[in-house]
Amino acid sequence: MAKHAIAVLLLFIVLFNLALQSSSSQPPRPFSFRGAPKFLGRFSTSKSHHSNDRRSKQILGYRYETRYFEQRLDHFSFAELPTFNQRYLISSEHWAGPDRLGPIFLYCGNEGDIEWFAANTGFVWEIAPSFGAMVVFPEHRYYGESLPFGSREEAYKNAATLSYLTAEQALADFSVLITNLKRNLSAEACPVVLFGGSYGGMLAAWMRVKYPHIAIGALASSAPILQFEDIVPPETFYDIVSNDFKRESTSCFNTIKASWSALISEGQKENGLSQLTRMFRLCRELTNTEELTNWLDSAYSYLAMVNYPYPSDFIMPLPGHPIREVCRKIDGCPDGTSVLERVFEGVNVFYNHTGEVNCFELDDDPHGMNGWSWQACSEMVMPMSSSPDASMFPTYEFNFSAFQEECWTDFKVIPRPRWITTEFGGKDIMTDLKTFGSNIIFSNGFLDPWSGGSVTQNVSGSVVALNTQEGS
Amino acid sequence: MAKHAIAVLLLFIVLFNLALQSSSSQPPRPFSFRGAPKFLGRFSTSKSHHSNDRRSKQILGYRYETRYFEQRLDHFSFAELPTFNQRYLISSEHWAGPDRLGPIFLYCGNEGDIEWFAANTGFVWEIAPSFGAMVVFPEHRYYGESLPFGSREEAYKNAATLSYLTAEQALADFSVLITNLKRNLSAEACPVVLFGGSYGGMLAAWMRVKYPHIAIGALASSAPILQFEDIVPPETFYDIVSNDFKRESTSCFNTIKASWSALISEGQKENGLSQLTRMFRLCRELTNTEELTNWLDSAYSYLAMVNYPYPSDFIMPLPGHPIREVCRKIDGCPDGTSVLERVFEGVNVFYNHTGEVNCFELDDDPHGMNGWSWQACSEMVMPMSSSPDASMFPTYEFNFSAFQEECWTDFKVIPRPRWITTEFGGKDIMTDLKTFGSNIIFSNGFLDPWSGGSVTQNVSGSVVALNTQEGS
Repeated sequence: MAKHAIAVLLLFIVLFNLALQSSSSQPPRPFSFRGAPKFLGRFSTSKSHHSNDRRSKQILGYRYETRYFEQRLDHFSFAELPTFNQRYLISSEHWAGPDRLGPIFLYCGNEGDIEWFAANTGFVWEIAPSFGAMVVFPEHRYYGESLPFGSREEAYKNAATLSYLTAEQALADFSVLITNLKRNLSAEACPVVLFGGSYGGMLAAWMRVKYPHIAIGALASSAPILQFEDIVPPETFYDIVSNDFKRESTSCFNTIKASWSALISEGQKENGLSQLTRMFRLCRELTNTEELTNWLDSAYSYLAMVNYPYPSDFIMPLPGHPIREVCRKIDGCPDGTSVLERVFEGVNVFYNHTGEVNCFELDDDPHGMNGWSWQACSEMVMPMSSSPDASMFPTYEFNFSAFQEECWTDFKVIPRPRWITTEFGGKDIMTDLKTFGSNIIFSNGFLDPWSGGSVTQNVSGSVVALNTQEGS
Repeated sequence: MAKHAIAVLLLFIVLFNLALQSSSSQPPRPFSFRGAPKFLGRFSTSKSHHSNDRRSKQILGYRYETRYFEQRLDHFSFAELPTFNQRYLISSEHWAGPDRLGPIFLYCGNEGDIEWFAANTGFVWEIAPSFGAMVVFPEHRYYGESLPFGSREEAYKNAATLSYLTAEQALADFSVLITNLKRNLSAEACPVVLFGGSYGGMLAAWMRVKYPHIAIGALASSAPILQFEDIVPPETFYDIVSNDFKRESTSCFNTIKASWSALISEGQKENGLSQLTRMFRLCRELTNTEELTNWLDSAYSYLAMVNYPYPSDFIMPLPGHPIREVCRKIDGCPDGTSVLERVFEGVNVFYNHTGEVNCFELDDDPHGMNGWSWQACSEMVMPMSSSPDASMFPTYEFNFSAFQEECWTDFKVIPRPRWITTEFGGKDIMTDLKTFGSNIIFSNGFLDPWSGGSVTQNVSGSVVALNTQEGS
């Protein structure tokens, strides 16, 4: 037993160092929202492969298989409900096996197609061989192919069918799956290490806290587990995004800050909306300026999340230092260029880096029925405001009543803003994690707007923050 | 913060010593079952006060109030379900208040009327004043007055209405209630300490593990958290009961062991069942010998759980050392007394100590619809066997298929025998609790048949076992 504990400790120390070395090259999974938050469902869907065959596939040269596991819809009741098949990717290619206590690397699937996340989580694949680790990527329920009620349409039909889309159910899915998998492989003694980024990073940290007997440690990247209630100021997110622009160029920051009122003024003119539609090369006519505001807001927020120093293609094909590029475009327009023309040039870097887009779609999820919107409206209530000075976004104060009304309109669901901290803690995270947490690495890039809601200080010898000052 | 941590530690050390001192006088909450397990629902119901008024009442001279808190039926989904009112008893009489960080003693209500448990948990009431502690006794959902769907009849109607009767939901109830209570009292910083016995002891230990941010420590009495799957041998429970009899008298043990076949032989004779009905002074005619076997089995099992050295009245009015009394009756019959007449004399000590019973009811819960039976048939699957030699009970090997069939017949529910260890751990409890557990006292009496499934060894400096060799 002591031998086992030492092996586990060693594994964790090595993992920590590896994470440290590669933290600058590992893209965190971004998310973004405002008011009724949105996430990357639309991106992940368009990029997914959607295959049903179980043939072996490859990521970065590593072979994996696609399998399916039958899950209960509600783990915490005995209500008679249909089960669903959870998809998971598995690679035993480099696994040392049960006799040599080969570890199992479990990636906590987040709100999108698991193949997309697997393809963008090179770190796990790269380090697995040197640990003799098995790699498992289970998909999060209600995303990708892991759809209850047989189809996406049925699963997303209404509040009743969506009601089992919660983080607790997802953690129970992971726990039941991995326990079953280990039993079938006589691998009960093999340690499980969790990985995850963004929402998946939150799941990894929470799973280490709620299912410590199942996983011995977690690497939680860009995991804003403190972005609930009043734990961090609601302005944090947009202040960081804004600062990412300001540090590149104050005039760029000022131009964007000035653009919102210019946009509203323009929209109020006769034929203003048509004028804006043409100026921003939109595929369909604007019906209000808010649509355009949200489109611009999304671009800036995502840019802050993927502001890598090298060209990348996670949510969009982008150049290296994309915010610098945006500001270069905004600042570089000839004298006399209007504020709105400038910001249009800027967001082209995000929405049209390849230059192939003829016109821009404002919203390819018109029903707002993507899974993250539901989660944000039910238990993942993250208050977000935009401050009058430090933020370049339109000033906005989070208003729970308005938020609640929006959620009722969209989903007929009543948000439970206090549930997450009751279930997972967070109100006094330093004391809590010091007292009962262990083996969690929170990795953060301080340019990433989600770092403000993450754990950015070392808590104890085995709950540590791994911060990259200039990391996204 | 450091000051707070020290206060908490001190509190825990004092509690530990108090528990040590009083462990011999604190009755653990017993439970018992065989095949389709039973519990103390029937006792607790008959003893309950069932009052709806909120006037202040007293236990051992301590005043408390009865209040109700609106709870969700399923904390882990957003399904549209009716809420229910959870009853809780609360006493702030001796509370030091939020400014002085007065602790909150939270008793994890178990499978019965909370007033009955509160009246039988003197320890908590007695120590509260010296800690300046608030005392809260929340009732477990589906028991006492805390009934979903408006009435006991509706709540226990079928598998669909019963499906939210699970330990996880109960823990979430406690967590939501206490978080809300603390917020309303501006007492967020006040430490919560958990108490519980038997199933409630399991809840206390599990809550400390699953909600460490909510409670800083737990005193779990007679909590068989290891009585699942194959963690402890399935013979453990009945072997301990049997040994409790053998240590009083080998002939007593032998008589009981011989009685089962005598009983079956008698039952197979012409008019045998009528003869047994008369011999055992039953209120209604026996329809098979199994009914009588179960009735005797229950008596012996309960006796082992409440085998206190002093007269008590927890589940039945009993003399001190009741097993010694039973054996004295069995052994003391004149020569020539039959085995069956002897055991009848013996069980009279349990069922009729007061001598007021005219005839015996075999089963006052004829529909088997009490809550514990449901829990045992859904997630609380505790395999129980009776060994051929060490046990004085009829030899029986636990058979999951037969168990599953019985549960289907009784409740139309399919048991999930592996869920509890997935959700709460237990397969490698020493490593698990050493790695992530803290501030849990497991108190056990080694004469108590549930001690075999409890944690009986010290795990670490703050997860300790407090054993009383001759304790029940």
